[in-house]
Amino acid sequence: MNQEYLKATPWSIIEEGFDKELVQSSESIFSLGNGAMGQRANFEETYTGETFQGSYIAGVYYPDKTRVGWWKNGYPEYFAKVLNAPNWIGINIWVNGEALDLNTCKEVNGYSRELNMKEGWYRRTFEAVLPNDRKIQVEAIRFLSLHLDEVGAIQYNVTAIDSDLEVKFQPYLDSGITNEDSNWDDKFWNTTNIDVHGNQGFIEAYTMKTQFKTCTFMQSQLLLNGEILKKEPKSTSKDLWVGHEYSQKISKGDTLSLQKFGGYTVERNHQGKNLVDISKEVLKKAEDLGFETLLDKQKQSWAEIWEMSDITIEGDVKAQQGIRFNIFQLNQTYLGRDSRLNIGPKGFTGEKYGGSTYWDTEAYCIPFYMATKNQQVARNLLKYRYNHLQKAIENAQKLGFTNGAALYPMVTMNGEECHNEWEITFEEIHRNGAIAFAIYNYYRFTGDYSYIPEMGLEVLIGIARFWHQRASFSEQKQKYVILGVTGPNEYENNVNNNWYTNYLAQWCINFTVEQLQRVHDGFEDDYRRIVGKTKLTDGEVAHWKKVADKMYFPYSEEKQVFLQQDGFLDKELITVKDLPSAQRPINQKWSWDRILRSPYIKQADVLQGFYFFEDHFSKEELKRHFDFYEPFTVHESSLSPCVHSIQAAKLNQMEQAYKFYLRTSRLDLDDYNKEVEEGLHITSMAGTWMSIVEGFGGMRVADDQLLFNPRIPEKWDSYSFKINFRGSVVKVSVKQKETEFSISGDDSITIRCNQKEVELKPGRDISVPH
Amino acid sequence: MNQEYLKATPWSIIEEGFDKELVQSSESIFSLGNGAMGQRANFEETYTGETFQGSYIAGVYYPDKTRVGWWKNGYPEYFAKVLNAPNWIGINIWVNGEALDLNTCKEVNGYSRELNMKEGWYRRTFEAVLPNDRKIQVEAIRFLSLHLDEVGAIQYNVTAIDSDLEVKFQPYLDSGITNEDSNWDDKFWNTTNIDVHGNQGFIEAYTMKTQFKTCTFMQSQLLLNGEILKKEPKSTSKDLWVGHEYSQKISKGDTLSLQKFGGYTVERNHQGKNLVDISKEVLKKAEDLGFETLLDKQKQSWAEIWEMSDITIEGDVKAQQGIRFNIFQLNQTYLGRDSRLNIGPKGFTGEKYGGSTYWDTEAYCIPFYMATKNQQVARNLLKYRYNHLQKAIENAQKLGFTNGAALYPMVTMNGEECHNEWEITFEEIHRNGAIAFAIYNYYRFTGDYSYIPEMGLEVLIGIARFWHQRASFSEQKQKYVILGVTGPNEYENNVNNNWYTNYLAQWCINFTVEQLQRVHDGFEDDYRRIVGKTKLTDGEVAHWKKVADKMYFPYSEEKQVFLQQDGFLDKELITVKDLPSAQRPINQKWSWDRILRSPYIKQADVLQGFYFFEDHFSKEELKRHFDFYEPFTVHESSLSPCVHSIQAAKLNQMEQAYKFYLRTSRLDLDDYNKEVEEGLHITSMAGTWMSIVEGFGGMRVADDQLLFNPRIPEKWDSYSFKINFRGSVVKVSVKQKETEFSISGDDSITIRCNQKEVELKPGRDISVPH
Repeated sequence: MNQEYLKATPWSIIEEGFDKELVQSSESIFSLGNGAMGQRANFEETYTGETFQGSYIAGVYYPDKTRVGWWKNGYPEYFAKVLNAPNWIGINIWVNGEALDLNTCKEVNGYSRELNMKEGWYRRTFEAVLPNDRKIQVEAIRFLSLHLDEVGAIQYNVTAIDSDLEVKFQPYLDSGITNEDSNWDDKFWNTTNIDVHGNQGFIEAYTMKTQFKTCTFMQSQLLLNGEILKKEPKSTSKDLWVGHEYSQKISKGDTLSLQKFGGYTVERNHQGKNLVDISKEVLKKAEDLGFETLLDKQKQSWAEIWEMSDITIEGDVKAQQGIRFNIFQLNQTYLGRDSRLNIGPKGFTGEKYGGSTYWDTEAYCIPFYMATKNQQVARNLLKYRYNHLQKAIENAQKLGFTNGAALYPMVTMNGEECHNEWEITFEEIHRNGAIAFAIYNYYRFTGDYSYIPEMGLEVLIGIARFWHQRASFSEQKQKYVILGVTGPNEYENNVNNNWYTNYLAQWCINFTVEQLQRVHDGFEDDYRRIVGKTKLTDGEVAHWKKVADKMYFPYSEEKQVFLQQDGFLDKELITVKDLPSAQRPINQKWSWDRILRSPYIKQADVLQGFYFFEDHFSKEELKRHFDFYEPFTVHESSLSPCVHSIQAAKLNQMEQAYKFYLRTSRLDLDDYNKEVEEGLHITSMAGTWMSIVEGFGGMRVADDQLLFNPRIPEKWDSYSFKINFRGSVVKVSVKQKETEFSISGDDSITIRCNQKEVELKPGRDISVPH
Repeated sequence: MNQEYLKATPWSIIEEGFDKELVQSSESIFSLGNGAMGQRANFEETYTGETFQGSYIAGVYYPDKTRVGWWKNGYPEYFAKVLNAPNWIGINIWVNGEALDLNTCKEVNGYSRELNMKEGWYRRTFEAVLPNDRKIQVEAIRFLSLHLDEVGAIQYNVTAIDSDLEVKFQPYLDSGITNEDSNWDDKFWNTTNIDVHGNQGFIEAYTMKTQFKTCTFMQSQLLLNGEILKKEPKSTSKDLWVGHEYSQKISKGDTLSLQKFGGYTVERNHQGKNLVDISKEVLKKAEDLGFETLLDKQKQSWAEIWEMSDITIEGDVKAQQGIRFNIFQLNQTYLGRDSRLNIGPKGFTGEKYGGSTYWDTEAYCIPFYMATKNQQVARNLLKYRYNHLQKAIENAQKLGFTNGAALYPMVTMNGEECHNEWEITFEEIHRNGAIAFAIYNYYRFTGDYSYIPEMGLEVLIGIARFWHQRASFSEQKQKYVILGVTGPNEYENNVNNNWYTNYLAQWCINFTVEQLQRVHDGFEDDYRRIVGKTKLTDGEVAHWKKVADKMYFPYSEEKQVFLQQDGFLDKELITVKDLPSAQRPINQKWSWDRILRSPYIKQADVLQGFYFFEDHFSKEELKRHFDFYEPFTVHESSLSPCVHSIQAAKLNQMEQAYKFYLRTSRLDLDDYNKEVEEGLHITSMAGTWMSIVEGFGGMRVADDQLLFNPRIPEKWDSYSFKINFRGSVVKVSVKQKETEFSISGDDSITIRCNQKEVELKPGRDISVPH
């Protein structure tokens, strides 16, 4: 199943040998990003083989008109997608008049790619024999600067191997790009200005409809054997294209290099300014530093990120590489600096899912960012939803809800719903609960209550109002029911009383009521402001409580488990192990109706509830539910195995936990789902982190205290991770027989390990035997 | 709500006065068809205002590539649609060099349209003042011949009112036409040959992908004051167009006429022949008869149709006009001559629903055709499905069924599924039962058992196999359940144990098992052939029976009713009368999820089962179910009111029955749903017929006998209809106090009226008092 064409090393991803079939997969794997922009690992030079071009600017999207077979009332008009942006990496190369194109070369030898995760750069080297029999050695190194996040840098070296050569570099910008994914072949970009002079070039373009103004820029210089050649390039420009041309005769053994700075400035970050002027300022900063210094700063920035977020694994290099790849990609995608941005399921590595925000952020990503960054980052992710509250209220209104009830969209860019499958868009409403849960989770972890009176409570009120209205009273059951939903298991649609949804709904109301009281008691001004704004009355809250108190939960007395939904036990309960492997994955082999009436679970559903609300249930209850639902779970979502891994670990089923972990950690590197060429599974990467930290490490926060319950897979010698907990950084090193704790910072803290209190003091390692 | 711009007369539809806003509605209402082709009532002359052009050839369709938002496994690749075909009715007209165009005329006076249903023709008359102030009187009469069903005829008269004029006619053919409904703007037609000479013109074109070869043809001649002018027209042709030009000076008071024959020949009906040659033969036949004789034959053909199928209503001219309009349109759409054709929901009057076949045919249309035509017509409709059996088996295979299980498509042209909404395509599987029921119904009505051993039994076996596999055993219920279906009420999706579906499934298996026995006993050769072909074993049949015997039916002990589906009683049971009218129709006002969790029923569901299997339930049971479900029924399908009308009549709730009847009979004439411009609701028109014959007349067939239970709405003086029953034609005239029966043919038969036997003898009317 796995391609496994990549070399396992602890800090790098390495591909060796040129295989045209793997170009698109590698374009995903070797993607670069710096939070503000990102790009697939497309070649700089011309490539006429199969390629999937992608360069993306955070927050720059296009509302592509919805395409449906049959329109349903309430469908959104558009699907926002982050667009393939103008190309700034392009460098055409001719050798003695022959274009360099790996698709047409007579020979390509010693081809390799390296993604250096430790230092944050990407390098490609190869030796090529061109159709005209000229032989060159190429080394191209590229990075997207964390220090100057509007800038990327390339150094492209061509060495003449066995003869004198004439080498021509043509660095260019191109806004004549398209999206692979387009519903109606709309034109996405409008180019308004082409500017080229000296060794600089600029293309100003804005996105149609959304009118995001951008400037794509470049600046280049030539070096011979490392010495700058003061040479003015020849400028050319077309409608959607600007280029420079450098021609140079070099002798056998010489290396001619092109250094290119490029990137984007976006009006969003420079309101009212001329973007070409801004771009020139940005280029000046890059030029002043120079390529090498900028690269040094890149290494330094990544060292700082790793210092906090690295996980080491000894004794399993593939696992080590896998977890670092996950952490690296998460940091490439989102750094938490800007509360207008969020985390798309594919990050900057592809077009699928449109780069939009899903509940993945709240359920999977926030724990990672809370523990490995300062708390402002998670707060920014919460604020993102606060900023969208009004849109969530409007979204609920479109579906018939009133009185400020808020339904957050399933998929969104600017707060408006973008998805258009009724069973998801209208019915997968549990997403609303994940957003409330994240507010609770943030407070539980950081101890920062301030977010709730400032912003969170308004969000909670909107969500509580939604659940109150969405539940209806069943005369027959004399309980409140929630009909017609899709739970986290998207392999059941339009079911009644999905336990997870009902449980979340009840919890949301209760939590909101508690926070109302707490804000009332402790933050009088905020309370008054919020009640005034939301026109909340005690009577309304009493109505909510009635719904929460009388919520219905499907339960089987016989099996002693909560039922995933009302009809679950009517299904033919054949477990996954009795399902012929030829029928899997069922989402490729079965028609939708067959999937729906099967008992197979795409991703944790009841167990997702047990994950969120672990402390509401005993270990015995967890075991019963895990043993009941795990055998029906097909894990056909990348978000599935991590929850099962955490729970298996908790139940001390370490072999199983390790199996689930493996499935998630190298999902993309080993192309488990045979789709890596579409892009990487960014949000599920946070789940991998959780599998180690919460699963194996047993990290939890309760009563303002960090808890651990460390376990270690048999195969590993040791592993370590760090947790940024309320100003202290706790380092946890788990070995087969013991766990070592250390702490940095000035203060001591008390944690619990295996239920016992342990005091951690700066400068002193403490070892707790297992 | 109703536009009611049409004059009520018993035999004609009449529009008076020219209103540009109504052009598209009238284009639907005044549509013509002859079973082989049909057309919207587009103007012959140029019209630059809003128009919806439509000319259709039966069975000539294009497989338009499926458009979906999110692809689900199992979706069909295409949606077949009957296409707008090359235009043969066009006649450009110039008066003193000025084009006649009702959109630009200075004045249009005395404008009227008449659709003469009795004689089968359509006429338009008006007086126009052109922009150049020339004044003409126009009369255009058009019909699609039943006698020569490849031919249509037009006579277009222009009279000079107050000055001498030069009139130019340009009759033409045009294959440069488009569809309003196109998923991807494909080119649908490919024109291969343009041929014009003398007064004839031909365009050969075939449909892309399906390669249906057609020839569109015309022939024209000029008349002055009724006398043929021997005048050779000037021919012109373009890529996709041929025309003739006739110029003539006429004096004030003169009438210049153009007679044009046109139409289509299709390769399907002339295998291996040259279609231009065939078209010339067809034109020769038309020419030999001449316009007047062909029109006389048209009147005669329609007289024959009316002789059998007319329903008269005395004392309510709107009801009279309504029912005749329904009967007229059904006959225009389908005459039952060709078992390769079927009845599209919009017939030849628009593009919606693609002109494809739905379960409407079996559930609603077959009873009409059985009673008003010879039995071959209904047999042809059954044979249509027999011909598609292999495709239905393949369709089931795509959804994971095996062993010859057949699932007939929801929407089809050639037997392949064309629909692509998972909740319909994969889950509205009750359609399979309607196809089996039609086999039963045909035999019950006609007494012709031969269809079952010849063809029907194979269809039944495929259907029984489907139900056997589709049901699954619920350990919890210890019964067979059918999970994840959509019943006739499409306002519930993916429900479990839709009572109607489960009941039909059980019935299908039982009926199939009975027929197996009967064919085994009485048609040994057929039995051997079928068992050989289907590889059916006794063991397999025993398995079917087990499913039928242990089928689960949701039932409420408290309400004493069968439940529409497992979850029905958990809904908020607010009746339609308590639903604010501003919220209706809910399919326009509510989002889909809200509709799904509401108790509102789009069309008869449990009650559809009570309609099909009336004799399985007592009148008390019917009343209980009618009283339970009717209050939740919103009748937002055109197929809904007729079943409720029939049942209300049976329950002697005549006022209610009449209300439902009104809603169906003038649905299009009064544009109840404000969508008549899209085309007419052809298949629901058969429901209107059922409302009178089965509802008011109480006509049934049981034990090889015709039964009546006549009732009459208070408002009517009388009504009458005829039933073609096994070679006898029984005429039933219902008056307020009595019902009169008469019979034509040679034989006497015994019927039952109000449970009493009545012997009907040829030549003797019998009156039964109420």
